[in-house]
Amino acid sequence: MSDIHPFDAALAFTEVEGGWQGHTSPPYANMIGPYGGITAAQILQSVLQHPARLGEPVALTVNFAAAVADGAFLLRPRAARTNRSTQHWIVEVLQQHEVVATATLVTATRRATFGGHEAQMPAVPRPHDVPRTHRRGVEWLHRYEMRFLEGTIPRNWDGQGTSDSLSRLWVRDEPARPLDFPSLTAIADVFFPRLWLRRAKLTPLGTVTMTVYFHATGAQLAQTGSGYLLAQARGQGFGGGFFDHVGQLWDEAGTLLATTHQVMYYKE
Amino acid sequence: MSDIHPFDAALAFTEVEGGWQGHTSPPYANMIGPYGGITAAQILQSVLQHPARLGEPVALTVNFAAAVADGAFLLRPRAARTNRSTQHWIVEVLQQHEVVATATLVTATRRATFGGHEAQMPAVPRPHDVPRTHRRGVEWLHRYEMRFLEGTIPRNWDGQGTSDSLSRLWVRDEPARPLDFPSLTAIADVFFPRLWLRRAKLTPLGTVTMTVYFHATGAQLAQTGSGYLLAQARGQGFGGGFFDHVGQLWDEAGTLLATTHQVMYYKE
Repeated sequence: MSDIHPFDAALAFTEVEGGWQGHTSPPYANMIGPYGGITAAQILQSVLQHPARLGEPVALTVNFAAAVADGAFLLRPRAARTNRSTQHWIVEVLQQHEVVATATLVTATRRATFGGHEAQMPAVPRPHDVPRTHRRGVEWLHRYEMRFLEGTIPRNWDGQGTSDSLSRLWVRDEPARPLDFPSLTAIADVFFPRLWLRRAKLTPLGTVTMTVYFHATGAQLAQTGSGYLLAQARGQGFGGGFFDHVGQLWDEAGTLLATTHQVMYYKE
Repeated sequence: MSDIHPFDAALAFTEVEGGWQGHTSPPYANMIGPYGGITAAQILQSVLQHPARLGEPVALTVNFAAAVADGAFLLRPRAARTNRSTQHWIVEVLQQHEVVATATLVTATRRATFGGHEAQMPAVPRPHDVPRTHRRGVEWLHRYEMRFLEGTIPRNWDGQGTSDSLSRLWVRDEPARPLDFPSLTAIADVFFPRLWLRRAKLTPLGTVTMTVYFHATGAQLAQTGSGYLLAQARGQGFGGGFFDHVGQLWDEAGTLLATTHQVMYYKE
Protein backbone atom coordinates (compact mmCIF):
# COMPACT_ATOMS: atom_id res chain seq x y z
CA MET A 1 0.00 0.00 0.00
CA SER A 2 2.84 2.39 0.78
CA ASP A 3 3.69 2.77 -2.91
CA ILE A 4 0.20 3.82 -3.94
CA HIS A 5 -0.42 7.55 -4.19
CA PRO A 6 -3.33 8.49 -1.89
CA PHE A 7 -5.16 9.92 -4.89
CA ASP A 8 -5.00 6.58 -6.71
CA ALA A 9 -6.01 4.75 -3.56
CA ALA A 10 -9.09 6.98 -3.31
CA LEU A 11 -10.05 6.01 -6.86
CA ALA A 12 -9.86 2.25 -6.34
CA PHE A 13 -13.37 0.81 -6.50
CA THR A 14 -14.92 -2.64 -6.22
CA GLU A 15 -17.43 -3.76 -8.81
CA VAL A 16 -20.82 -4.40 -7.24
CA GLU A 17 -24.34 -4.87 -8.54
CA GLY A 18 -25.46 -1.65 -10.18
CA GLY A 19 -22.11 0.11 -10.20
CA TRP A 20 -18.92 0.52 -8.21
CA GLN A 21 -18.39 0.64 -4.50
CA GLY A 22 -15.96 3.30 -3.33
CA HIS A 23 -14.87 4.56 0.06
CA THR A 24 -14.19 8.01 1.42
CA SER A 25 -10.47 8.61 1.74
CA PRO A 26 -9.05 9.75 5.10
CA PRO A 27 -6.14 11.57 3.39
CA TYR A 28 -8.73 13.75 1.58
CA ALA A 29 -10.94 14.40 4.61
CA ASN A 30 -12.53 17.82 4.95
CA MET A 31 -13.98 19.37 8.10
CA ILE A 32 -17.09 17.22 7.73
CA GLY A 33 -16.89 14.33 5.28
CA PRO A 34 -14.61 14.31 2.23
CA TYR A 35 -13.11 17.14 0.16
CA GLY A 36 -15.59 17.85 -2.64
CA GLY A 37 -12.84 17.63 -5.25
CA ILE A 38 -12.12 14.00 -4.40
CA THR A 39 -15.82 13.13 -4.65
CA ALA A 40 -15.96 14.82 -8.07
CA ALA A 41 -12.86 12.87 -9.14
CA GLN A 42 -14.39 9.60 -7.96
CA ILE A 43 -17.56 10.33 -9.90
CA LEU A 44 -15.55 11.04 -13.03
CA GLN A 45 -13.49 7.88 -12.53
CA SER A 46 -16.66 5.79 -12.25
CA VAL A 47 -17.41 6.68 -15.86
CA LEU A 48 -13.81 6.59 -17.12
CA GLN A 49 -13.45 2.96 -16.07
CA HIS A 50 -16.90 1.98 -17.36
CA PRO A 51 -16.53 -0.50 -20.25
CA ALA A 52 -19.11 1.37 -22.35
CA ARG A 53 -17.40 4.76 -22.04
CA LEU A 54 -16.72 6.59 -25.30
CA GLY A 55 -13.98 9.20 -25.68
CA GLU A 56 -12.70 11.67 -23.12
CA PRO A 57 -14.41 14.09 -20.72
CA VAL A 58 -15.69 17.38 -22.10
CA ALA A 59 -18.02 18.68 -19.37
CA LEU A 60 -18.74 17.44 -15.85
CA THR A 61 -21.34 18.81 -13.44
CA VAL A 62 -21.45 17.42 -9.91
CA ASN A 63 -24.25 18.32 -7.49
CA PHE A 64 -23.54 17.74 -3.82
CA ALA A 65 -26.97 16.74 -2.56
CA ALA A 66 -26.10 15.83 1.03
CA ALA A 67 -23.12 15.50 3.32
CA VAL A 68 -21.14 12.39 2.37
CA ALA A 69 -20.59 10.29 5.49
CA ASP A 70 -17.21 8.69 6.07
CA GLY A 71 -17.32 5.14 4.74
CA ALA A 72 -18.56 3.28 1.68
CA PHE A 73 -20.71 4.61 -1.13
CA LEU A 74 -22.19 3.29 -4.35
CA LEU A 75 -21.31 4.99 -7.64
CA ARG A 76 -24.04 4.35 -10.21
CA PRO A 77 -23.09 5.63 -13.69
CA ARG A 78 -25.50 5.24 -16.59
CA ALA A 79 -25.06 6.15 -20.26
CA ALA A 80 -28.28 8.05 -20.98
CA ARG A 81 -27.39 8.56 -24.63
CA THR A 82 -24.60 7.35 -26.89
CA ASN A 83 -24.03 9.05 -30.21
CA ARG A 84 -21.36 8.46 -32.83
CA SER A 85 -18.81 10.73 -31.19
CA THR A 86 -20.41 11.96 -27.95
CA GLN A 87 -21.91 10.30 -24.93
CA HIS A 88 -24.09 11.62 -22.09
CA TRP A 89 -23.80 10.09 -18.63
CA ILE A 90 -25.88 10.45 -15.49
CA VAL A 91 -24.18 9.39 -12.26
CA GLU A 92 -25.77 8.99 -8.86
CA VAL A 93 -23.85 8.41 -5.65
CA LEU A 94 -25.69 6.63 -2.85
CA GLN A 95 -25.13 5.90 0.81
CA GLN A 96 -27.67 3.80 2.73
CA HIS A 97 -29.85 3.81 -0.41
CA GLU A 98 -30.08 7.61 -0.30
CA VAL A 99 -28.68 9.86 -3.03
CA VAL A 100 -25.81 12.02 -1.73
CA ALA A 101 -24.61 13.34 -5.11
CA THR A 102 -25.79 13.53 -8.71
CA ALA A 103 -23.74 14.29 -11.78
CA THR A 104 -23.84 14.56 -15.53
CA LEU A 105 -20.86 14.05 -17.80
CA VAL A 106 -20.40 14.60 -21.50
CA THR A 107 -17.63 12.59 -23.12
CA ALA A 108 -16.50 12.81 -26.73
CA THR A 109 -13.92 11.70 -29.22
CA ARG A 110 -12.23 14.95 -30.09
CA ARG A 111 -11.43 15.95 -33.63
CA ALA A 112 -8.73 18.14 -35.15
CA THR A 113 -10.25 21.60 -35.57
CA PHE A 114 -9.48 25.28 -35.32
CA GLY A 115 -8.12 26.01 -31.88
CA GLY A 116 -6.94 29.04 -29.96
CA HIS A 117 -7.77 29.61 -26.33
CA GLU A 118 -9.03 33.06 -25.47
CA ALA A 119 -8.59 32.95 -21.68
CA GLN A 120 -4.90 33.82 -21.44
CA MET A 121 -2.76 32.96 -18.46
CA PRO A 122 -1.88 36.15 -16.58
CA ALA A 123 1.77 37.21 -16.32
CA VAL A 124 2.92 35.75 -13.02
CA PRO A 125 6.22 34.63 -11.44
CA ARG A 126 7.30 31.04 -12.04
CA PRO A 127 6.30 28.45 -9.43
CA HIS A 128 9.75 28.11 -7.88
CA ASP A 129 10.03 31.88 -7.48
CA VAL A 130 6.92 31.87 -5.29
CA PRO A 131 7.21 30.66 -1.68
CA ARG A 132 5.18 27.69 -0.69
CA THR A 133 2.03 28.57 1.24
CA HIS A 134 1.77 26.37 4.29
CA ARG A 135 -1.78 25.73 5.32
CA ARG A 136 -3.06 23.87 8.32
CA GLY A 137 -6.44 22.61 9.27
CA VAL A 138 -8.27 19.91 7.43
CA GLU A 139 -6.43 16.90 6.09
CA TRP A 140 -6.95 17.37 2.34
CA LEU A 141 -4.97 20.60 2.38
CA HIS A 142 -1.85 18.46 2.88
CA ARG A 143 -2.55 16.66 -0.39
CA TYR A 144 -1.76 19.80 -2.38
CA GLU A 145 1.33 21.91 -2.71
CA MET A 146 0.10 25.51 -2.98
CA ARG A 147 2.03 28.65 -3.82
CA PHE A 148 -0.27 31.65 -3.60
CA LEU A 149 0.31 34.66 -5.82
CA GLU A 150 -2.66 36.68 -4.62
CA GLY A 151 -5.92 36.30 -2.77
CA THR A 152 -4.53 34.22 0.07
CA ILE A 153 -6.92 33.13 2.79
CA PRO A 154 -7.42 36.03 5.25
CA ARG A 155 -4.87 36.22 8.07
CA ASN A 156 -7.17 38.21 10.28
CA TRP A 157 -10.79 37.23 10.54
CA ASP A 158 -11.71 40.78 11.40
CA GLY A 159 -14.67 41.26 9.11
CA GLN A 160 -12.66 43.58 6.87
CA GLY A 161 -13.10 41.80 3.58
CA THR A 162 -12.20 42.84 0.04
CA SER A 163 -14.38 43.84 -2.87
CA ASP A 164 -12.35 41.65 -5.26
CA SER A 165 -12.25 37.94 -4.46
CA LEU A 166 -9.65 37.01 -7.09
CA SER A 167 -7.23 34.27 -6.02
CA ARG A 168 -4.27 32.97 -8.01
CA LEU A 169 -2.02 30.13 -6.99
CA TRP A 170 0.34 27.56 -8.38
CA VAL A 171 -0.81 24.14 -7.26
CA ARG A 172 0.01 20.46 -7.74
CA ASP A 173 -0.58 17.16 -6.01
CA GLU A 174 1.47 16.44 -2.89
CA PRO A 175 3.31 14.16 -3.38
CA ALA A 176 3.66 15.10 -7.05
CA ARG A 177 1.71 12.88 -9.44
CA PRO A 178 1.27 12.94 -13.25
CA LEU A 179 -1.84 14.93 -14.16
CA ASP A 180 -4.89 13.14 -15.54
CA PHE A 181 -8.60 13.93 -15.84
CA PRO A 182 -9.53 12.87 -12.29
CA SER A 183 -6.70 14.80 -10.64
CA LEU A 184 -7.45 17.88 -12.75
CA THR A 185 -11.07 17.60 -11.63
CA ALA A 186 -10.07 17.42 -7.99
CA ILE A 187 -7.75 20.44 -8.35
CA ALA A 188 -10.65 22.41 -9.87
CA ASP A 189 -12.20 22.43 -6.38
CA VAL A 190 -9.02 23.63 -4.64
CA PHE A 191 -10.19 27.23 -4.16
CA PHE A 192 -11.15 28.17 -0.62
CA PRO A 193 -14.56 29.90 -0.49
CA ARG A 194 -14.60 33.32 -2.18
CA LEU A 195 -17.02 34.47 0.50
CA TRP A 196 -14.21 34.28 3.06
CA LEU A 197 -12.20 36.80 1.05
CA ARG A 198 -15.18 39.08 0.61
CA ARG A 199 -16.08 39.03 4.31
CA ALA A 200 -12.96 37.99 6.26
CA LYS A 201 -15.40 36.07 8.42
CA LEU A 202 -15.47 32.31 8.95
CA THR A 203 -19.00 31.27 8.09
CA PRO A 204 -20.38 27.75 7.59
CA LEU A 205 -20.72 26.87 3.92
CA GLY A 206 -20.37 24.10 1.39
CA THR A 207 -20.32 23.48 -2.35
CA VAL A 208 -23.73 22.75 -3.86
CA THR A 209 -22.78 22.29 -7.51
CA MET A 210 -19.56 22.36 -9.49
CA THR A 211 -18.87 22.22 -13.22
CA VAL A 212 -15.60 21.51 -15.01
CA TYR A 213 -15.13 22.07 -18.75
CA PHE A 214 -12.11 20.21 -20.09
CA HIS A 215 -10.07 21.94 -22.79
CA ALA A 216 -7.25 19.41 -23.08
CA THR A 217 -6.90 15.82 -24.24
CA GLY A 218 -5.54 13.08 -22.03
CA ALA A 219 -2.34 13.23 -24.07
CA GLN A 220 -1.96 16.94 -23.30
CA LEU A 221 -2.54 16.30 -19.60
CA ALA A 222 0.13 13.60 -19.70
CA GLN A 223 2.56 16.16 -21.16
CA THR A 224 1.88 18.40 -18.17
CA GLY A 225 3.20 15.54 -16.06
CA SER A 226 3.66 16.50 -12.43
CA GLY A 227 4.19 20.18 -13.17
CA TYR A 228 2.28 22.98 -11.47
CA LEU A 229 -1.06 24.39 -12.56
CA LEU A 230 -1.93 28.05 -12.32
CA ALA A 231 -5.38 28.12 -10.74
CA GLN A 232 -7.47 31.27 -10.68
CA ALA A 233 -10.98 31.98 -9.39
CA ARG A 234 -13.19 35.00 -8.78
CA GLY A 235 -16.66 35.37 -7.31
CA GLN A 236 -19.64 36.69 -9.28
CA GLY A 237 -22.97 36.77 -7.45
CA PHE A 238 -23.42 36.70 -3.65
CA GLY A 239 -26.83 36.77 -1.99
CA GLY A 240 -29.73 34.86 -0.48
CA GLY A 241 -27.51 32.12 0.90
CA PHE A 242 -25.62 31.26 -2.31
CA PHE A 243 -22.64 32.56 -4.25
CA ASP A 244 -20.78 31.41 -7.35
CA HIS A 245 -17.30 31.68 -8.78
CA VAL A 246 -15.70 31.20 -12.16
CA GLY A 247 -12.19 29.80 -12.49
CA GLN A 248 -9.50 28.76 -14.94
CA LEU A 249 -6.62 26.27 -14.80
CA TRP A 250 -3.49 26.55 -16.96
CA ASP A 251 -0.36 24.42 -17.09
CA GLU A 252 3.10 25.92 -16.64
CA ALA A 253 3.42 26.43 -20.40
CA GLY A 254 0.32 28.64 -20.26
CA THR A 255 -2.07 26.22 -21.94
CA LEU A 256 -5.65 26.40 -20.70
CA LEU A 257 -6.55 22.94 -19.43
CA ALA A 258 -9.94 23.54 -17.84
CA THR A 259 -12.47 26.17 -16.84
CA THR A 260 -14.64 25.68 -13.80
CA HIS A 261 -17.63 27.18 -11.99
CA GLN A 262 -19.33 26.42 -8.76
CA VAL A 263 -22.07 27.50 -6.37
CA MET A 264 -21.67 27.34 -2.59
CA TYR A 265 -24.36 27.83 0.02
CA TYR A 266 -23.71 29.82 3.16
CA LYS A 267 -25.64 30.30 6.32
CA GLU A 268 -25.58 33.97 7.19
CA MET B 1 -54.88 31.36 -28.40
CA SER B 2 -54.03 34.77 -29.83
CA ASP B 3 -53.76 36.28 -26.36
CA ILE B 4 -51.18 33.78 -25.16
CA HIS B 5 -47.55 34.87 -25.41
CA PRO B 6 -45.64 32.34 -27.55
CA PHE B 7 -43.29 31.76 -24.63
CA ASP B 8 -46.16 30.71 -22.38
CA ALA B 9 -47.64 28.58 -25.13
CA ALA B 10 -44.30 26.76 -25.42
CA LEU B 11 -44.42 26.00 -21.69
CA ALA B 12 -47.91 24.49 -21.68
CA PHE B 13 -47.65 20.77 -20.99
CA THR B 14 -50.04 17.87 -20.64
CA GLU B 15 -49.69 15.52 -17.69
CA VAL B 16 -48.90 12.00 -18.85
CA GLU B 17 -47.65 8.84 -17.18
CA GLY B 18 -44.13 9.46 -15.94
CA GLY B 19 -44.06 13.20 -16.46
CA TRP B 20 -45.28 15.93 -18.77
CA GLN B 21 -45.75 15.92 -22.50
CA GLY B 22 -44.54 19.04 -24.24
CA HIS B 23 -44.21 20.10 -27.86
CA THR B 24 -41.56 21.96 -29.76
CA SER B 25 -42.67 25.50 -30.50
CA PRO B 26 -42.60 26.77 -34.12
CA PRO B 27 -42.11 30.39 -32.94
CA TYR B 28 -38.86 29.27 -31.25
CA ALA B 29 -37.57 27.15 -34.13
CA ASN B 30 -33.84 27.15 -34.80
CA MET B 31 -32.11 26.07 -38.00
CA ILE B 32 -32.61 22.43 -37.03
CA GLY B 33 -35.05 21.72 -34.21
CA PRO B 34 -35.81 24.18 -31.42
CA TYR B 35 -33.76 27.03 -29.94
CA GLY B 36 -31.78 25.52 -27.06
CA GLY B 37 -32.95 28.24 -24.70
CA ILE B 38 -36.60 27.22 -25.08
CA THR B 39 -35.72 23.58 -24.39
CA ALA B 40 -33.84 24.67 -21.25
CA ALA B 41 -36.84 26.76 -20.18
CA GLN B 42 -39.20 23.83 -20.75
CA ILE B 43 -36.97 21.59 -18.65
CA LEU B 44 -36.95 24.14 -15.84
CA GLN B 45 -40.72 24.55 -16.07
CA SER B 46 -41.22 20.78 -15.76
CA VAL B 47 -39.76 21.03 -12.25
CA LEU B 48 -41.33 24.36 -11.33
CA GLN B 49 -44.82 22.99 -11.89
CA HIS B 50 -44.05 19.68 -10.15
CA PRO B 51 -46.16 19.36 -6.98
CA ALA B 52 -43.16 18.17 -4.93
CA ARG B 53 -40.92 21.09 -5.89
CA LEU B 54 -39.29 22.94 -3.00
CA GLY B 55 -38.14 26.57 -3.25
CA GLU B 56 -36.73 28.40 -6.24
CA PRO B 57 -34.04 27.56 -8.81
CA VAL B 58 -30.39 28.03 -7.81
CA ALA B 59 -28.47 26.10 -10.48
CA LEU B 60 -29.58 24.43 -13.71
CA THR B 61 -27.42 22.35 -16.04
CA VAL B 62 -28.92 21.15 -19.32
CA ASN B 63 -27.11 18.68 -21.56
CA PHE B 64 -28.25 18.55 -25.16
CA ALA B 65 -27.76 14.87 -25.95
CA ALA B 66 -29.27 14.74 -29.42
CA ALA B 67 -31.09 16.93 -31.91
CA VAL B 68 -34.66 17.51 -30.71
CA ALA B 69 -37.05 16.65 -33.53
CA ASP B 70 -40.04 18.90 -34.17
CA GLY B 71 -43.02 17.47 -32.34
CA ALA B 72 -43.86 16.00 -28.95
CA PHE B 73 -41.45 15.07 -26.18
CA LEU B 74 -41.72 13.63 -22.68
CA LEU B 75 -40.28 15.64 -19.76
CA ARG B 76 -39.42 13.29 -16.90
CA PRO B 77 -38.38 15.20 -13.75
CA ARG B 78 -37.40 13.28 -10.60
CA ALA B 79 -36.45 14.59 -7.16
CA ALA B 80 -33.27 12.63 -6.44
CA ARG B 81 -32.87 14.17 -2.99
CA THR B 82 -34.99 16.47 -0.85
CA ASN B 83 -33.42 18.20 2.14
CA ARG B 84 -34.90 20.68 4.57
CA SER B 85 -34.14 23.71 2.40
CA THR B 86 -32.62 22.32 -0.83
CA GLN B 87 -33.73 19.85 -3.44
CA HIS B 88 -31.84 18.06 -6.23
CA TRP B 89 -33.63 17.17 -9.45
CA ILE B 90 -32.69 15.02 -12.41
CA VAL B 91 -34.66 15.61 -15.59
CA GLU B 92 -34.63 13.53 -18.75
CA VAL B 93 -36.28 14.54 -22.00
CA LEU B 94 -37.31 11.73 -24.32
CA GLN B 95 -38.53 11.39 -27.87
CA GLN B 96 -39.48 7.95 -29.22
CA HIS B 97 -38.22 6.48 -25.95
CA GLU B 98 -34.74 7.87 -26.57
CA VAL B 99 -33.09 10.47 -24.35
CA VAL B 100 -32.56 13.76 -26.20
CA ALA B 101 -31.60 15.89 -23.17
CA THR B 102 -30.58 15.44 -19.55
CA ALA B 103 -30.53 18.04 -16.82
CA THR B 104 -29.90 18.60 -13.15
CA LEU B 105 -31.48 21.36 -11.11
CA VAL B 106 -30.85 22.55 -7.57
CA THR B 107 -33.74 24.39 -5.93
CA ALA B 108 -33.70 26.01 -2.50
CA THR B 109 -35.61 28.19 -0.13
CA ARG B 110 -33.38 31.22 0.10
CA ARG B 111 -32.53 32.87 3.39
CA ALA B 112 -31.63 36.42 4.32
CA THR B 113 -27.82 36.60 4.37
CA PHE B 114 -24.91 38.83 3.52
CA GLY B 115 -25.19 39.87 -0.10
CA GLY B 116 -23.19 41.95 -2.52
CA HIS B 117 -22.62 40.93 -6.12
CA GLU B 118 -19.06 41.14 -7.35
CA ALA B 119 -19.68 40.95 -11.11
CA GLN B 120 -20.55 44.58 -11.80
CA MET B 121 -22.54 45.70 -14.80
CA PRO B 122 -20.26 47.58 -17.19
CA ALA B 123 -20.95 51.25 -17.93
CA VAL B 124 -23.07 51.19 -21.06
CA PRO B 125 -25.67 53.41 -22.75
CA ARG B 126 -29.30 52.91 -21.75
CA PRO B 127 -31.41 50.56 -23.88
CA HIS B 128 -33.37 53.27 -25.66
CA ASP B 129 -30.16 55.07 -26.61
CA VAL B 130 -29.00 51.99 -28.49
CA PRO B 131 -30.51 51.20 -31.91
CA ARG B 132 -32.36 47.97 -32.27
CA THR B 133 -30.35 45.27 -34.02
CA HIS B 134 -32.48 43.65 -36.68
CA ARG B 135 -31.58 40.06 -37.29
CA ARG B 136 -32.91 37.71 -39.87
CA GLY B 137 -32.65 34.01 -40.31
CA VAL B 138 -34.09 31.49 -37.94
CA GLU B 139 -37.48 32.02 -36.33
CA TRP B 140 -36.47 32.29 -32.66
CA LEU B 141 -34.47 35.46 -33.36
CA HIS B 142 -37.80 37.24 -33.84
CA ARG B 143 -38.82 36.31 -30.28
CA TYR B 144 -36.20 38.66 -28.83
CA GLU B 145 -35.64 42.36 -29.10
CA MET B 146 -31.87 42.83 -29.24
CA ARG B 147 -29.84 46.03 -29.03
CA PHE B 148 -26.17 45.22 -29.48
CA LEU B 149 -23.54 47.35 -27.77
CA GLU B 150 -20.53 45.39 -28.98
CA GLY B 151 -19.59 42.05 -30.44
CA THR B 152 -22.31 42.00 -33.09
CA ILE B 153 -22.46 39.02 -35.41
CA PRO B 154 -19.86 39.46 -38.19
CA ARG B 155 -21.05 41.42 -41.23
CA ASN B 156 -18.46 39.89 -43.49
CA TRP B 157 -17.77 36.20 -43.27
CA ASP B 158 -14.28 36.77 -44.56
CA GLY B 159 -12.34 34.65 -42.09
CA GLN B 160 -10.96 37.77 -40.41
CA GLY B 161 -12.05 37.09 -36.85
CA THR B 162 -11.21 38.85 -33.61
CA SER B 163 -9.09 37.75 -30.68
CA ASP B 164 -11.73 38.97 -28.21
CA SER B 165 -15.17 37.36 -28.47
CA LEU B 166 -16.92 39.64 -25.97
CA SER B 167 -20.53 40.50 -26.85
CA ARG B 168 -22.82 42.86 -24.97
CA LEU B 169 -26.44 43.49 -25.77
CA TRP B 170 -29.67 44.71 -24.24
CA VAL B 171 -32.31 42.06 -24.75
CA ARG B 172 -35.89 41.27 -23.81
CA ASP B 173 -38.74 39.10 -24.99
CA GLU B 174 -40.57 40.17 -28.15
CA PRO B 175 -43.36 40.91 -27.50
CA ALA B 176 -42.36 42.14 -24.06
CA ARG B 177 -43.27 39.80 -21.20
CA PRO B 178 -42.66 39.96 -17.42
CA LEU B 179 -39.44 38.19 -16.54
CA ASP B 180 -39.55 34.90 -14.63
CA PHE B 181 -37.19 31.98 -14.11
CA PRO B 182 -38.04 30.17 -17.37
CA SER B 183 -37.72 33.29 -19.53
CA LEU B 184 -34.44 34.25 -17.83
CA THR B 185 -33.19 30.73 -18.57
CA ALA B 186 -34.13 31.04 -22.22
CA ILE B 187 -32.43 34.42 -22.51
CA ALA B 188 -29.25 32.92 -21.04
CA ASP B 189 -28.85 31.05 -24.34
CA VAL B 190 -29.35 34.12 -26.52
CA PHE B 191 -25.66 34.57 -27.40
CA PHE B 192 -24.73 33.60 -30.94
CA PRO B 193 -21.68 31.29 -31.02
CA ARG B 194 -18.45 32.95 -29.82
CA LEU B 195 -16.60 30.90 -32.43
CA TRP B 196 -18.24 32.95 -35.18
CA LEU B 197 -16.70 36.11 -33.72
CA ARG B 198 -13.31 34.49 -33.37
CA ARG B 199 -13.26 33.14 -36.92
CA ALA B 200 -15.76 35.18 -38.96
CA LYS B 201 -16.59 31.89 -40.60
CA LEU B 202 -19.96 30.15 -40.57
CA THR B 203 -19.25 26.67 -39.27
CA PRO B 204 -21.74 24.02 -38.15
CA LEU B 205 -22.05 23.86 -34.36
CA GLY B 206 -24.45 23.34 -31.50
CA THR B 207 -24.69 23.65 -27.73
CA VAL B 208 -23.70 20.52 -25.84
CA THR B 209 -24.20 21.69 -22.27
CA MET B 210 -25.40 24.87 -20.60
CA THR B 211 -25.49 25.97 -16.98
CA VAL B 212 -27.41 28.84 -15.40
CA TYR B 213 -26.77 30.04 -11.85
CA PHE B 214 -29.65 32.14 -10.52
CA HIS B 215 -28.76 35.08 -8.29
CA ALA B 216 -32.25 36.56 -7.88
CA THR B 217 -35.48 35.51 -6.28
CA GLY B 218 -38.72 35.23 -8.18
CA ALA B 219 -39.83 38.45 -6.47
CA GLN B 220 -36.75 40.27 -7.79
CA LEU B 221 -37.42 38.94 -11.30
CA ALA B 222 -41.00 40.18 -11.04
CA GLN B 223 -39.65 43.64 -10.20
CA THR B 224 -37.62 43.58 -13.41
CA GLY B 225 -40.92 43.23 -15.20
CA SER B 226 -40.63 43.52 -18.95
CA GLY B 227 -37.51 45.66 -18.79
CA TYR B 228 -34.32 44.92 -20.69
CA LEU B 229 -31.49 42.71 -19.53
CA LEU B 230 -27.86 43.46 -20.22
CA ALA B 231 -26.41 40.18 -21.47
CA GLN B 232 -22.67 39.67 -21.80
CA ALA B 233 -20.61 36.64 -22.85
CA ARG B 234 -16.99 35.89 -23.71
CA GLY B 235 -15.25 32.72 -24.88
CA GLN B 236 -12.59 30.93 -22.87
CA GLY B 237 -11.21 27.70 -24.38
CA PHE B 238 -11.42 26.73 -28.09
CA GLY B 239 -10.00 23.48 -29.43
CA GLY B 240 -10.54 19.85 -30.38
CA GLY B 241 -14.10 20.46 -31.54
CA PHE B 242 -15.40 22.25 -28.43
CA PHE B 243 -15.38 25.74 -26.96
CA ASP B 244 -16.95 27.36 -23.93
CA HIS B 245 -18.13 30.78 -22.87
CA VAL B 246 -18.96 32.49 -19.60
CA GLY B 247 -21.74 35.07 -19.38
CA GLN B 248 -23.64 37.38 -17.06
CA LEU B 249 -27.14 38.87 -17.10
CA TRP B 250 -28.08 42.10 -15.29
CA ASP B 251 -31.35 43.99 -15.13
CA GLU B 252 -31.59 47.66 -16.10
CA ALA B 253 -30.93 48.70 -12.49
CA GLY B 254 -27.59 46.86 -12.67
CA THR B 255 -28.55 43.93 -10.44
CA LEU B 256 -26.91 40.64 -11.38
CA LEU B 257 -29.72 38.17 -12.07
CA ALA B 258 -27.84 35.17 -13.41
CA THR B 259 -24.47 33.90 -14.55
CA THR B 260 -24.21 31.30 -17.28
CA HIS B 261 -21.72 29.02 -19.00
CA GLN B 262 -21.93 26.72 -21.94
CA VAL B 263 -19.96 24.40 -24.21
CA MET B 264 -20.62 24.14 -27.93
CA TYR B 265 -19.24 21.58 -30.34
CA TYR B 266 -18.03 22.56 -33.77
CA LYS B 267 -17.04 20.57 -36.79
CA GLU B 268 -13.86 22.06 -38.17
